[in-house]
Amino acid sequence: MTSTPIPTPTATPPDILRCAYMDIVVTDLARSRAFYVDVLGLVVTEESDTEIYLRSFEEFIHHNLVLRQGPVAAVAAMAFRVRAPEDVGLAESWYQELGCRTERRTNGFVKGVGDSVRVEDPLGFPYEFFYSVDHVERLAWRYDLHGPGALVRLDHFNQVTPDVGRGRGYLEDLGFRVTEDIQDEDGVTYAAWMRRKDTVHDTALTGGDGPRMHHIAFSTHEKHNIIYICDKLGALRMSDVIERGPGRHGVSNAFYLYLRDPDGHRVEIYTQDYYTGDPDNPVVTWDVHDNQRRDWWGNAVVPSWYTDASLVLDLDGNPQPVIVRTESSEMAVTVGADGFSYTRRDDVEHGFKLGNTL
Amino acid sequence: MTSTPIPTPTATPPDILRCAYMDIVVTDLARSRAFYVDVLGLVVTEESDTEIYLRSFEEFIHHNLVLRQGPVAAVAAMAFRVRAPEDVGLAESWYQELGCRTERRTNGFVKGVGDSVRVEDPLGFPYEFFYSVDHVERLAWRYDLHGPGALVRLDHFNQVTPDVGRGRGYLEDLGFRVTEDIQDEDGVTYAAWMRRKDTVHDTALTGGDGPRMHHIAFSTHEKHNIIYICDKLGALRMSDVIERGPGRHGVSNAFYLYLRDPDGHRVEIYTQDYYTGDPDNPVVTWDVHDNQRRDWWGNAVVPSWYTDASLVLDLDGNPQPVIVRTESSEMAVTVGADGFSYTRRDDVEHGFKLGNTL
Amino acid sequence: MTSTPIPTPTATPPDILRCAYMDIVVTDLARSRAFYVDVLGLVVTEESDTEIYLRSFEEFIHHNLVLRQGPVAAVAAMAFRVRAPEDVGLAESWYQELGCRTERRTNGFVKGVGDSVRVEDPLGFPYEFFYSVDHVERLAWRYDLHGPGALVRLDHFNQVTPDVGRGRGYLEDLGFRVTEDIQDEDGVTYAAWMRRKDTVHDTALTGGDGPRMHHIAFSTHEKHNIIYICDKLGALRMSDVIERGPGRHGVSNAFYLYLRDPDGHRVEIYTQDYYTGDPDNPVVTWDVHDNQRRDWWGNAVVPSWYTDASLVLDLDGNPQPVIVRTESSEMAVTVGADGFSYTRRDDVEHGFKLGNTL
Amino acid sequence: MTSTPIPTPTATPPDILRCAYMDIVVTDLARSRAFYVDVLGLVVTEESDTEIYLRSFEEFIHHNLVLRQGPVAAVAAMAFRVRAPEDVGLAESWYQELGCRTERRTNGFVKGVGDSVRVEDPLGFPYEFFYSVDHVERLAWRYDLHGPGALVRLDHFNQVTPDVGRGRGYLEDLGFRVTEDIQDEDGVTYAAWMRRKDTVHDTALTGGDGPRMHHIAFSTHEKHNIIYICDKLGALRMSDVIERGPGRHGVSNAFYLYLRDPDGHRVEIYTQDYYTGDPDNPVVTWDVHDNQRRDWWGNAVVPSWYTDASLVLDLDGNPQPVIVRTESSEMAVTVGADGFSYTRRDDVEHGFKLGNTL
Repeated sequence: MTSTPIPTPTATPPDILRCAYMDIVVTDLARSRAFYVDVLGLVVTEESDTEIYLRSFEEFIHHNLVLRQGPVAAVAAMAFRVRAPEDVGLAESWYQELGCRTERRTNGFVKGVGDSVRVEDPLGFPYEFFYSVDHVERLAWRYDLHGPGALVRLDHFNQVTPDVGRGRGYLEDLGFRVTEDIQDEDGVTYAAWMRRKDTVHDTALTGGDGPRMHHIAFSTHEKHNIIYICDKLGALRMSDVIERGPGRHGVSNAFYLYLRDPDGHRVEIYTQDYYTGDPDNPVVTWDVHDNQRRDWWGNAVVPSWYTDASLVLDLDGNPQPVIVRTESSEMAVTVGADGFSYTRRDDVEHGFKLGNTL
Repeated sequence: MTSTPIPTPTATPPDILRCAYMDIVVTDLARSRAFYVDVLGLVVTEESDTEIYLRSFEEFIHHNLVLRQGPVAAVAAMAFRVRAPEDVGLAESWYQELGCRTERRTNGFVKGVGDSVRVEDPLGFPYEFFYSVDHVERLAWRYDLHGPGALVRLDHFNQVTPDVGRGRGYLEDLGFRVTEDIQDEDGVTYAAWMRRKDTVHDTALTGGDGPRMHHIAFSTHEKHNIIYICDKLGALRMSDVIERGPGRHGVSNAFYLYLRDPDGHRVEIYTQDYYTGDPDNPVVTWDVHDNQRRDWWGNAVVPSWYTDASLVLDLDGNPQPVIVRTESSEMAVTVGADGFSYTRRDDVEHGFKLGNTL
Repeated sequence: MTSTPIPTPTATPPDILRCAYMDIVVTDLARSRAFYVDVLGLVVTEESDTEIYLRSFEEFIHHNLVLRQGPVAAVAAMAFRVRAPEDVGLAESWYQELGCRTERRTNGFVKGVGDSVRVEDPLGFPYEFFYSVDHVERLAWRYDLHGPGALVRLDHFNQVTPDVGRGRGYLEDLGFRVTEDIQDEDGVTYAAWMRRKDTVHDTALTGGDGPRMHHIAFSTHEKHNIIYICDKLGALRMSDVIERGPGRHGVSNAFYLYLRDPDGHRVEIYTQDYYTGDPDNPVVTWDVHDNQRRDWWGNAVVPSWYTDASLVLDLDGNPQPVIVRTESSEMAVTVGADGFSYTRRDDVEHGFKLGNTL
Repeated sequence: MTSTPIPTPTATPPDILRCAYMDIVVTDLARSRAFYVDVLGLVVTEESDTEIYLRSFEEFIHHNLVLRQGPVAAVAAMAFRVRAPEDVGLAESWYQELGCRTERRTNGFVKGVGDSVRVEDPLGFPYEFFYSVDHVERLAWRYDLHGPGALVRLDHFNQVTPDVGRGRGYLEDLGFRVTEDIQDEDGVTYAAWMRRKDTVHDTALTGGDGPRMHHIAFSTHEKHNIIYICDKLGALRMSDVIERGPGRHGVSNAFYLYLRDPDGHRVEIYTQDYYTGDPDNPVVTWDVHDNQRRDWWGNAVVPSWYTDASLVLDLDGNPQPVIVRTESSEMAVTVGADGFSYTRRDDVEHGFKLGNTL
């Protein structure tokens, strides 16, 4: 099946700095607060009965995550900061040329953020672009407040979309640069990592039923910070929230851990990828059959990591319909009722670690 | 089924200091050398065409591991150091009173070791006891020689035996003290950790078909040293030797990794358990249904970790027959031909991480 | 000057397990609590208006440190745990044979501890010996309570005494074994590290005016835990409590940091020495002129570390007089009024790092 | 004394990506190779009898450091990579407008680099700008080659100049952005940190006699990597090459270590500063009297760190004359013959750690 490419607008795209925050709907705000604040230790910038604004320790803008009480767990916006105030208008025009629905609010959609535009992008995701934002204290030096698992930065988003190649072209037009991808011998792209700031990614596209949000990732300084988070979850008898890892990614070379929040939203804890800021930064392409691409140690990816993801909302707050299309999914067959009837594309040669890889 | 307890000898048992070395038969000495020396970085004390003597960086006795070329991969001896020369004779008498076959060699069974006795113990394991040993340079300060995954100590052995309770009684008579164990609601003991030195164990008993050697464990200083070993194995495209982990044990509270050497002998890399040297050190008993007992983060144990182990040799160098008896095995049903027909005792409540826990 | 050796008693010495706790007088209990509990994170077992009982995270006995409100900052007792109840009586007899003043209390001198004896030892230190003690929860697995600088064990004491060689002989008679020492070319011993448990020391003797208590040391799991304590002190604008380090010791090979509490009592944070439990554990002797003996990286020891120490109390609670005798001090000349008129014994060849080494 | 500001050119400045490499003259190439390759573990891209090209493990361009045999230890060039080939010409024009001597070589001044321009900049430093460069293998995933102290990136340069405020204005014109600085109550700037990539700096200006090169800095992933380098230097009995640290910077919040190479060139090992890529990234200004600005733990800066630096060469290869001007030096008085007659600007209140702070 071939899907229509997304045309390249003639308008100038906005100059995006970085992924900046995610606005997510949670169904039990108190329970989500316990997870993100009490367990993960994110810093509360401000909060009300219906919203909580959280940031990482080295952040100086108002927030990196908004938790919003609502009826259905979903993502309301994936927000990028742009280089200058006028880039907000550039984003608006660029998406309008693509025929996308856009909404501009000079006072922002959330607290702390000023003039912004939200769009329903060509892949169905709710993207936001803003420059104006309140500055808050950067707590980098406040070690007295850091816990042993301190989350110091927002690192990236990850999105699930049925046709990765199509999405990649669109994001390259928007100014993103691919740093790594996963392909097969026929040139099908299963996933792509795309950056604006000098790291491996600000967002990534993962092949699967979409549009859905795969995860949001926060960074720690060192690997032991991530291990501590696991140890603490064990102590709290919450080990079931650990979905995958910790481990070392092949792609990105980062050390990782995947958690599931009380609504099932996936959070990655991530540390130590590499500098990518040169324009000729070499793209690393991984073979989808390479069992070290997703975990450098060959530990298998759990099926839920491939199959589960969060709904995303349109600009009216309704969930976007999910298009099922698995051609570019690394999970070739959906998990059956018995839990074992699927096949992963890297299963053939690597049956050694039976219990892990099925 | 009830097995006959092993009687308590009237003789004085030897005063055991610690697990000291393991003597293992490997089928391809060069390949094993590549694994233990080139990959794991153990220090070669001396070697010949048929034997290699290895030690950890903080060791001052001649070796912690002997690799011996032979036709069948197996364990020739699990050696303990005793407090004084006369303890060798005490060990000999103690086992003779139990009716065990013993062999005394005043010049030792291996290089570097003097007067020693080897026994076929009541569980079928080849134990050795010695005091006299050559001193070699303790390389603790030789950071120029340490690699990033430096193995600094031999920490413990682990043995598979069909009736853990029976074996535990015997080892307590020999002077070992239980620090932790795994039991079910009926008081069946599935595993027991037993110490002489001030750590969680010098050896442990794991329920399963035996006598077999489950693993030998070396310590690193910190967790990142263990992670590095995984990273290096990935770089060498040897990730298949990673059997389980890295992770945090519930039992022992240590950070761990399990590897399989070229013959399938299992090696644990281990760090950071706790002081146990007081006589009233509290015993920690874990429920066999607690899915955090084996991995504090709830990551499932791979089946091979429960089913596979190394043969052990009698004093003539022939493999001891393996007695199949799974009553005290945490793996209730043996893995079938299809690899999936077993049940783990902690499976009932913890089906969340499907891909991991089967 | 030659001092009279302390005779070896004919009585059987007690079987000492380990250093167990220190009982110290502080002049402002609230301020000390802020330091030990709020900053260092020690666990409060129980407390009153005049006493606070603290322990480390892996401890199962009632306390490792008692803070006691009093008029003069000093050490009331350095307590060792013995192997069995009857060892308390052995200690009493052993010291009585030496002509030392002893006091036995079957209900203990402090809360949580039962039958104990305190002595004014031949060097003037208030030693205590006990076996009976309340068990409390071992918080090893309670990662939810651990901070990033978690102190997990009491590791050792360190005592200042004018004649190290004399003190060493006495402690060897008491059952301690020397693991490392510092000597000069004439065989003068400047410091000695002495162990009962399987680490480099339970106590050490440092040459200088005494009897005085040099420091009490707690362990962390890893080096980053110690670095975090420094980072936190910086964040609290308390960096002046950092007296020396962090650094790597030559002696003991451990990573260290020295702090001064609000009364000037010195606390070491320590991690990663080596196993010493074998009876023939090699003794490491360092040359007093070796500038890497005290800091493996050659960073100079600050003068206060050599000159300052805490008073110790007699059994009536009065400070023991301090005998000035610097023959075995590594600081050859006391620091003068201008702060710079001393000479350290390793100064001759190592003037490179001027600012550090004076 | 007021120096004339450097005028702002009307020409468009080049778009600088990052500091890329330093070209330094060493007087004994074999000895320098032993230091940078055998001890620090930098990767040799290529070498001859007179030059060695070195890179860090995550680098994909030809080199980050050139060692060049020569008669006088000095810096031949501090090279920045620009975004596009045409930026080389922009740099040439920009400096020509300032009246600076420039030299353009389409085949590069060193191996692996193509079209480049070198200039004698207004402060007297030999800056180079290039885009064209050979790509080499990025060894990020080659953990089998990484040592425990692996240097993974070039992080920044640091330059000594008599008038920091003047230099700062010039570098801001060139496109650098200040992230942090040190000032006194009169607004005198003692040091400034200036970035192009998303870190705290690509270069910094330190007040003192100049033009001289203060240091070149390489990054590790974690703090333990830096500690290992110290441990290894101790093991090699090379601790005298440790000039300062390890410690935590106040400025930049990074963990650091300063070494001196065989010619006295200073190398910093550095890890974990923070993201600075937003245009409104908050500038952090430190008070020169704040004793935690240079070391967050209050450990004093050794005098040599303030006084020593490397000569820089003009485009003929002759050392630039050094202008003595200490108004913006944090070391108010030069160290005298006796080594103790200077005063540091933060000395007044912080006399506590006598041995360290003098």
